Amino acid sequence: MANRIVTISREFGSGGRTVGKHLAEKLGIPCYDQELLEKIAEESGLAKEYIAERGEYTPRGGWLATAFADRSVNGLSIQDYLWTVQRKLILEIAAKESCVIVGRCADYILDGKQDLLKVFVYASMEKRAERIVKLYGETGDSPEKRLRDKDKRRAAYYQFYTDMEWGKVQHYHIALDSGTLGVDKCVDIIAGLY
Amino acid sequence: MANRIVTISREFGSGGRTVGKHLAEKLGIPCYDQELLEKIAEESGLAKEYIAERGEYTPRGGWLATAFADRSVNGLSIQDYLWTVQRKLILEIAAKESCVIVGRCADYILDGKQDLLKVFVYASMEKRAERIVKLYGETGDSPEKRLRDKDKRRAAYYQFYTDMEWGKVQHYHIALDSGTLGVDKCVDIIAGLY
Repeated sequence: MANRIVTISREFGSGGRTVGKHLAEKLGIPCYDQELLEKIAEESGLAKEYIAERGEYTPRGGWLATAFADRSVNGLSIQDYLWTVQRKLILEIAAKESCVIVGRCADYILDGKQDLLKVFVYASMEKRAERIVKLYGETGDSPEKRLRDKDKRRAAYYQFYTDMEWGKVQHYHIALDSGTLGVDKCVDIIAGLY
Repeated sequence: MANRIVTISREFGSGGRTVGKHLAEKLGIPCYDQELLEKIAEESGLAKEYIAERGEYTPRGGWLATAFADRSVNGLSIQDYLWTVQRKLILEIAAKESCVIVGRCADYILDGKQDLLKVFVYASMEKRAERIVKLYGETGDSPEKRLRDKDKRRAAYYQFYTDMEWGKVQHYHIALDSGTLGVDKCVDIIAGLY
């Protein structure tokens, strides 16, 4: 039987990553999140922390341009190079087994290539602020500013590599407000669809 | 116990109206769709067909301005008058009983006032085109043009009266691609949440 892949795209602080992890446990299939990062690190020879951070920066120009923008590997910017590694690994993983993949534009990379269930997880600013302070603690910036910054980066990164609007509901099969429904209910619904 | 209301906002041709009808049957509560239109007609003294059509026009100015724009009732434009009638009836219905309400900005009108489950139903252009041709037949315009026109009207109407973006996923608790999931599955998921 063909592999069935669930991709989870999520707003920062929505608990989408936890939804993915619990869903994979419930379905008895692997969840690629940190594991994917480790694979990208191994394949690219770059540090995991660097990739996690860089993975959500647009590669060049605009307000997100960084000091790293002109570094290159084989003539590609670091970000474009990481994108090619990430794309290759996601295609390999999906060809190998049924799984859950969190983030990293997997929804776009696999679209039309696999039996996909594309999920978007979001929550209100209040719920997400509460969650990130609980999980990652306070910083100099307000939780709202941290959320807005992170959302902007994800949206810009997604837009750059996919030429599509991040979080636009029409790209997904289902979108769930984890703040109201709760993580468990989200997991149940997705598992029921799978 | 407090009334529980499900609001269904939907893209034209997505089958959201059918989802609402079947959901209400399954839950054993009324569905307000045509019934709401009839109530608005009765209360306003205007014809149902006129309201159905007018209900999705923005009241004044811009590219949707119409020959009706300067008619008025008690100093209100027809559209503003219909909005006040619609708002009053939706508040009355929701105060009276648990129910499903399709369209008519009920999600916005009832927000914060009732125990609400806000649903958005959408589908791909292809699936919607297929559906409207099957349901309403062919016309001089292509199905894609009819869908785009209708979506534009709904979005403009919603934006005008709510000052919010129609179909933006963050306004809803759950959003469902009826084209992929199918109407029955959508009904099951919503009923499960209710």
